[in-house]
Amino acid sequence: METKNISSAVIKRLPRYYRYLSELLDEDVERISSNELSRKMHVTASQIRQDLNNFGGFGQQGYGYNVKYLYKEIGKILGLDVVHPMIILGAGNLGQALANYREFEKRGFKLVGIFDINPVLEGITVRGIEIKMIKDLGQFIKENSVEIAILTIPKNKAKEMADILVENGIKAIWNFAHVDLETPENVIVENVHLSESLMTLSYNISKYEQEHKDNE
Amino acid sequence: METKNISSAVIKRLPRYYRYLSELLDEDVERISSNELSRKMHVTASQIRQDLNNFGGFGQQGYGYNVKYLYKEIGKILGLDVVHPMIILGAGNLGQALANYREFEKRGFKLVGIFDINPVLEGITVRGIEIKMIKDLGQFIKENSVEIAILTIPKNKAKEMADILVENGIKAIWNFAHVDLETPENVIVENVHLSESLMTLSYNISKYEQEHKDNE
Repeated sequence: METKNISSAVIKRLPRYYRYLSELLDEDVERISSNELSRKMHVTASQIRQDLNNFGGFGQQGYGYNVKYLYKEIGKILGLDVVHPMIILGAGNLGQALANYREFEKRGFKLVGIFDINPVLEGITVRGIEIKMIKDLGQFIKENSVEIAILTIPKNKAKEMADILVENGIKAIWNFAHVDLETPENVIVENVHLSESLMTLSYNISKYEQEHKDNE
Repeated sequence: METKNISSAVIKRLPRYYRYLSELLDEDVERISSNELSRKMHVTASQIRQDLNNFGGFGQQGYGYNVKYLYKEIGKILGLDVVHPMIILGAGNLGQALANYREFEKRGFKLVGIFDINPVLEGITVRGIEIKMIKDLGQFIKENSVEIAILTIPKNKAKEMADILVENGIKAIWNFAHVDLETPENVIVENVHLSESLMTLSYNISKYEQEHKDNE
């Protein structure tokens, strides 16, 4: 399938389409019209038609979209048709929370290791996986073809850990540490900066209140 | 201060400026030039000058920006100069991880309660806060002027909980449940859909590999 010409704006919306299609599949829905999907997703039907037109010749009038086919094709674009071996660095609450997200594994994100720097945690198991020490990290990445590292360690250690990950050939870092990482171009970084999300929330509270006060 | 004319693109970048300024303050830096900030943040100096021009008449040639003043002003815009009482719904790993983020409290996000539906958890304390049951939620929100609810419960319960929160006058929901919530216009929702972030990561891995293969 040709994926090159899909715009980045469409790409950004794909995970949300994927989620809705997954829910439709769970409800055994075989096909859906752009109007129905529009009502569910609160996106205009024309936006949906435009976006999904990128995925070839279906969505005919009177039929709608084949849910299973579309789900599969979008999954391929998102790289969910292959297994991505994954490790967690940082076995604290957040690391453990992520280790227990069963949904990730369903999508091909297979947790194969958990690492920490605290020797007290060595050997303790989380979801059947023994916590290992950082000294074993390099060898483990190579032996297990680890692609993704989830970074849930404090920010003062994050850059150092990122360097070790890069040296050992990691493909991507899912970064929860509250710091911007500098990695070479071939190492993908996706940040989840929770504080920044919470600040956006409080900005929106202030903004709503100010607008509301002005209208009084 | 006039905040109305700041574009939403600038607003989106504010939390990141705020974070960098906070780090500079920790290092006792009093002033910084746009060029230095540019090198640190990997944003062009002209972008920085344009963005920060929104915050009044400083950043003169030969002086640079007053770090403390800028930090404070951006904090005000982001609503961080007031206390936001906050509760967590869902005392699982993720809820506990968020309860333990001390950084939030420094920014005015004060955790005042934790709720769960599992009676086994009732009365257990997390960071000195006793876990309460959902039946007490409504009264608690009103008595404690709770503004923000963090939703870390499974998606099949999230909509129902959101309705209860809205009924009881919550101002904002920070939603970690993997579902889109429908709330009235006066209730702010900020989503952290972790699966979607992970899918974006895997999309970028696939894309990089495809581009790299094409170049061989």
